[in-house]
Amino acid sequence: MYHHVKRLMYTVNVGTPEPRFGNMLLEQFGGANGELAAALQYSIQGLNCDDPDRQDLLMDIGTEELSHLEIVGTLARMHLKPMKKSATAAESDPLVAIAGGGGATLCNSMGTPWTADYLKITGELDVDLRSNIAAEARAKIVYERLINFCDDPGTKDALQFLMTREIAHMKSFAFALDSLGKKPFSIGQIPPTPELVDQYFNDSTGVGDHGERDARGPWNSGNGWEFVEAPAFGEIRAGEGGRAEGKSRSAHR
Amino acid sequence: MYHHVKRLMYTVNVGTPEPRFGNMLLEQFGGANGELAAALQYSIQGLNCDDPDRQDLLMDIGTEELSHLEIVGTLARMHLKPMKKSATAAESDPLVAIAGGGGATLCNSMGTPWTADYLKITGELDVDLRSNIAAEARAKIVYERLINFCDDPGTKDALQFLMTREIAHMKSFAFALDSLGKKPFSIGQIPPTPELVDQYFNDSTGVGDHGERDARGPWNSGNGWEFVEAPAFGEIRAGEGGRAEGKSRSAHR
Amino acid sequence: MYHHVKRLMYTVNVGTPEPRFGNMLLEQFGGANGELAAALQYSIQGLNCDDPDRQDLLMDIGTEELSHLEIVGTLARMHLKPMKKSATAAESDPLVAIAGGGGATLCNSMGTPWTADYLKITGELDVDLRSNIAAEARAKIVYERLINFCDDPGTKDALQFLMTREIAHMKSFAFALDSLGKKPFSIGQIPPTPELVDQYFNDSTGVGDHGERDARGPWNSGNGWEFVEAPAFGEIRAGEGGRAEGKSRSAHR
Amino acid sequence: MYHHVKRLMYTVNVGTPEPRFGNMLLEQFGGANGELAAALQYSIQGLNCDDPDRQDLLMDIGTEELSHLEIVGTLARMHLKPMKKSATAAESDPLVAIAGGGGATLCNSMGTPWTADYLKITGELDVDLRSNIAAEARAKIVYERLINFCDDPGTKDALQFLMTREIAHMKSFAFALDSLGKKPFSIGQIPPTPELVDQYFNDSTGVGDHGERDARGPWNSGNGWEFVEAPAFGEIRAGEGGRAEGKSRSAHR
Amino acid sequence: MYHHVKRLMYTVNVGTPEPRFGNMLLEQFGGANGELAAALQYSIQGLNCDDPDRQDLLMDIGTEELSHLEIVGTLARMHLKPMKKSATAAESDPLVAIAGGGGATLCNSMGTPWTADYLKITGELDVDLRSNIAAEARAKIVYERLINFCDDPGTKDALQFLMTREIAHMKSFAFALDSLGKKPFSIGQIPPTPELVDQYFNDSTGVGDHGERDARGPWNSGNGWEFVEAPAFGEIRAGEGGRAEGKSRSAHR
Amino acid sequence: MYHHVKRLMYTVNVGTPEPRFGNMLLEQFGGANGELAAALQYSIQGLNCDDPDRQDLLMDIGTEELSHLEIVGTLARMHLKPMKKSATAAESDPLVAIAGGGGATLCNSMGTPWTADYLKITGELDVDLRSNIAAEARAKIVYERLINFCDDPGTKDALQFLMTREIAHMKSFAFALDSLGKKPFSIGQIPPTPELVDQYFNDSTGVGDHGERDARGPWNSGNGWEFVEAPAFGEIRAGEGGRAEGKSRSAHR
Repeated sequence: MYHHVKRLMYTVNVGTPEPRFGNMLLEQFGGANGELAAALQYSIQGLNCDDPDRQDLLMDIGTEELSHLEIVGTLARMHLKPMKKSATAAESDPLVAIAGGGGATLCNSMGTPWTADYLKITGELDVDLRSNIAAEARAKIVYERLINFCDDPGTKDALQFLMTREIAHMKSFAFALDSLGKKPFSIGQIPPTPELVDQYFNDSTGVGDHGERDARGPWNSGNGWEFVEAPAFGEIRAGEGGRAEGKSRSAHR
Repeated sequence: MYHHVKRLMYTVNVGTPEPRFGNMLLEQFGGANGELAAALQYSIQGLNCDDPDRQDLLMDIGTEELSHLEIVGTLARMHLKPMKKSATAAESDPLVAIAGGGGATLCNSMGTPWTADYLKITGELDVDLRSNIAAEARAKIVYERLINFCDDPGTKDALQFLMTREIAHMKSFAFALDSLGKKPFSIGQIPPTPELVDQYFNDSTGVGDHGERDARGPWNSGNGWEFVEAPAFGEIRAGEGGRAEGKSRSAHR
Repeated sequence: MYHHVKRLMYTVNVGTPEPRFGNMLLEQFGGANGELAAALQYSIQGLNCDDPDRQDLLMDIGTEELSHLEIVGTLARMHLKPMKKSATAAESDPLVAIAGGGGATLCNSMGTPWTADYLKITGELDVDLRSNIAAEARAKIVYERLINFCDDPGTKDALQFLMTREIAHMKSFAFALDSLGKKPFSIGQIPPTPELVDQYFNDSTGVGDHGERDARGPWNSGNGWEFVEAPAFGEIRAGEGGRAEGKSRSAHR
Repeated sequence: MYHHVKRLMYTVNVGTPEPRFGNMLLEQFGGANGELAAALQYSIQGLNCDDPDRQDLLMDIGTEELSHLEIVGTLARMHLKPMKKSATAAESDPLVAIAGGGGATLCNSMGTPWTADYLKITGELDVDLRSNIAAEARAKIVYERLINFCDDPGTKDALQFLMTREIAHMKSFAFALDSLGKKPFSIGQIPPTPELVDQYFNDSTGVGDHGERDARGPWNSGNGWEFVEAPAFGEIRAGEGGRAEGKSRSAHR
Repeated sequence: MYHHVKRLMYTVNVGTPEPRFGNMLLEQFGGANGELAAALQYSIQGLNCDDPDRQDLLMDIGTEELSHLEIVGTLARMHLKPMKKSATAAESDPLVAIAGGGGATLCNSMGTPWTADYLKITGELDVDLRSNIAAEARAKIVYERLINFCDDPGTKDALQFLMTREIAHMKSFAFALDSLGKKPFSIGQIPPTPELVDQYFNDSTGVGDHGERDARGPWNSGNGWEFVEAPAFGEIRAGEGGRAEGKSRSAHR
Repeated sequence: MYHHVKRLMYTVNVGTPEPRFGNMLLEQFGGANGELAAALQYSIQGLNCDDPDRQDLLMDIGTEELSHLEIVGTLARMHLKPMKKSATAAESDPLVAIAGGGGATLCNSMGTPWTADYLKITGELDVDLRSNIAAEARAKIVYERLINFCDDPGTKDALQFLMTREIAHMKSFAFALDSLGKKPFSIGQIPPTPELVDQYFNDSTGVGDHGERDARGPWNSGNGWEFVEAPAFGEIRAGEGGRAEGKSRSAHR
């Protein structure tokens, strides 16, 4: 059961409304990495969760994101207000101006309506927590970009609050994932095929005009990695004469 | 530049085609966590990437996912084939049967067309790597569920190959993230507000009929956490008499 | 600011889970006329509303719909649970089974993801109240159909609660519209063109094989109506000889 | 069966084309509350309708809306024409300019393609009539906003025609609903639960910084209403000591 | 201006309603290659067309497709009718049954709502005519598949009418394209680069397990073609030693 | 199996980045007629194709389009780069700037995410080849418009390469269709109804204010055509007195 209290979680002050910035703010209201996506992703994961302790975590943060949605919506509403009267302002977002009467709307900055396709919900707790950690990282960087494009101190102040909370949530989700005590790279029940899981396929090769190059790093050397030179490349050479030999065979056997 | 070789990365054998399972397989062909989503997410991140070493990683794995898409599509095509003739088979996926002529199609198992809304691309390398780690974890669990619902040994064998590679990719992305040497919970350039980032808001409280409860764990106690009893609850009590006192003030100030 | 309490607004009991019915229930979870659509339509109207009294109404009901979403989601989750294990159950909704792990998902019964395109928000208070009255009527009839297709007494009981509340909301919105004291058919500020607003264009004529016929009723006779015989028909006759004369001229001039 | 006559239902004159206004006009061509949505909503309701008299009404107005679509499309086409040559004009709507060659397109002003998600069709006649009344009210206010943002007298004149017809339709639908003789708030066959239908849940409480307040009005007092103080709030107090007493029990039992 | 006559363009008789087939029929009502797509593609091309003769063609066929939409919708409505009462029937398309009350709906057979993304409209007359020829070919084959999956003679008879008309339209569009007198492969005003337009890139090579092979035919030999062996392959060999020589150079210069 | 080589198929040089043009370029990256649509349409047709020779053609061109996607993406990335820092630049495409960090994104120029709804895949080889011919014609004209709106010589040069290749592909697809040796207007197996296939229905009649007129041409006269005067018009006259006589009967019987 939900209850709403008529106070914002963070007080919002806006100096001069800036419709173009109001339009940008919609990224965090009705956009792919915005507050509605966060609220619903966590709350629905929580609704379906069988682990009561981490279910509580999901519901706590899912509910907080609803309060953030309200803050972002209030900021957007204040910045979009000039669209009610001014044709110039309306050009920043004609959908908001003509169809929405100048209010906040569940679309992103380019008018694409919010869709549940943005959500990542698998019902596998550790997987969902990983999706949430990534989601908070994305939300943080989007707030940072909004702050960088913003001139109004009051707006920046509220965005700093919201941005900070994303990191707080990221920490909670990371601790919750650790607390499950799963081994690294262990997902679900079926183990991966032993040797194949340590192979790295070098499927993009060569050197490009803009500095592109073939690289080695801890993601494909050391750490038990077997480096498989381009499997398709082996096939191409085979096409010229015999079959490709060596490492590439193990990839397509 | 891309080249295609007319051999699958993994040989596919299907015993008795099972149209209903073919329909389920479309989750990994044209679904939210499927191979096209993986191929395009990594390849476009790679296209935009300024770090040539990790750009190579993104292109390697993005390209491998294209080869996986081909494998899943071949599996789906073989399982869907009876839809070309049989009305009963066609009922499993009328869109495939009537509009698509019984071939693999870029929709998920419920016929929803693939959309770029599935992709998570921010252009911030560490954030994108986190999104990729989560994406691989999701793909792994989806393959596991497909294996569990599958009776055909040849199909299971190919799915095991694909499932294993997702873990291999997950490892590469995790090592690549580590290799950036960023501090934990450090995203972008703007630091979060110091105390606020350590507060946990208890926004869902009480006890439910199905075992729901208010819980404490490393995600809200120890680790420097300040536990803030429900901010809105403080407001409600304040509404009854005076203003809420204490911790909840710091949340909405 | 929102707060969540870990009790459902209405206690839910489900006897034998029925996955196909669970799939149907998703219409009211992630469907066009479902609880998320209601919650967000009213809450965002409320966020943008300049009339504090009716804003309170919109927030009251918007928040109640969030609690309804939780009830429907819990019902759906219980009915969908067999999909976690059973391949037969999974065939009722492969997206839920394979991608969602058998939990409630923000899609409708055919797997279409929820979209903000379902919302009707104009920022014009009386218009929004009319949209809400219609929305409640639609939700009521959808619940009635679910009840008619349901065998489980506990589920029917919860659906009866939810269905009743839609009528309660419909009443509130109707009283709120009346309380604005607007004249009938008066929308916005610009008056309609006097005579034209009383013309009825008979644009579909003739008699059909399945009982279709040309009809008169209070919607096109009496009540000040001027009945204009098919404007295009006048043009067609005109094309045979001279120009159409009479009433049809006033329509297209 | 349909026939098209090569005359607009209303003659259209455009002075100086204004591409930005042409882009705004697309709201009524390919937008959520536009003429295609109206035409298809009523025509498909009519196709499915079992009541021959009101079926005729639905087909009459559904067909008229097709003629309106043609008018709006002609207006949009004339205003968008400069996009064929001018890069500056093209910036108002690059999709129209680059992909559509400067012609009217079935997208809204932000380029979102028209979708059947906009339609409200339940097959329950009185419910559909309510949806139509609300749809006409929305269309009216959108035309009013377009008129307010428009400088060209010829365009304003045509928009006034279209706006007026929406009110005419609204009247027809309202008389048709009345003529069904249904009791107020009576939808479908299953009656709502008696006492519960008269309860109003006060789910949003308190006082906000921008004038938000807890209000009473005919939508929650008098008229047989029982005012239920916030059900979740009762639960929260219960969480502090015993169970909540009184009205809130009846809400969630 | 449009007029509707209450007679179907082709009389429809349905024997025993078959809800699963009714669901399949929706492919031609609200599906990607269905009658609404055809009606709107041609009519909007016509609205924007500057060539009055072919504009008339586009309007003639666009209007006829509206009449076809009515026929398909009537067929679907009759086959879907059992969904009003029967839960078993409802399982064929729960969206139609629960949300739509058993009537035809603007979705495809998998419940995906119709979208203007299906339309191909460029505003370049010859290009649009090519898109229309292809669209009619697609619609023809979809009707053929529906006929093959249909047992009811009356339904087959109506589908044969509709299928035939698609070929009639295909012929008209082909003659209209020829009548423009454009040279083969001449699109727009800017000529293609001379030699490059005659090169064929062999970008997929090798031999596969299911009969895939590298082939030559009139699409890549004779007819002035220059056959360029895989450009990327040249790069790969170059990566082994020097730069690739020969034909492949001209491709990526 | 796919392999990627770190060289563009065509070298790209961009002078001064122009963010508004970068936004327009997205039409060919993530738009309806763009390179991803081409790559996936042909490659998936190829995956499902039973004719090994034309399957090779589909895979050759499908793979080449992936290399084109890379070129367009590189062009877009270079033109969009100023959005990383400049707020003015960001206003050209706030989604790219705020959510995407200034990189190329799989959306069109109005921010609509790429969707598989753009694809035309029926699994009927000759029909698919027709869809591909039309697709190449559309892509050609879109490139031409981009060239016309472009000032940068390096960008124009790369666009000329891409535009030329579309015509090369169009030729290949046309030769492949011819090589199937199908009779004109012969699609699938079921023959159209003999006389009906030669009837042309004059469903749009009259003369309009902007030069619209009723026309005759090879698409409705000669060539074996029977010209049927408006079928619905016949019905209207029939409604005035007796039934319509003559040709129109054969259309709707």
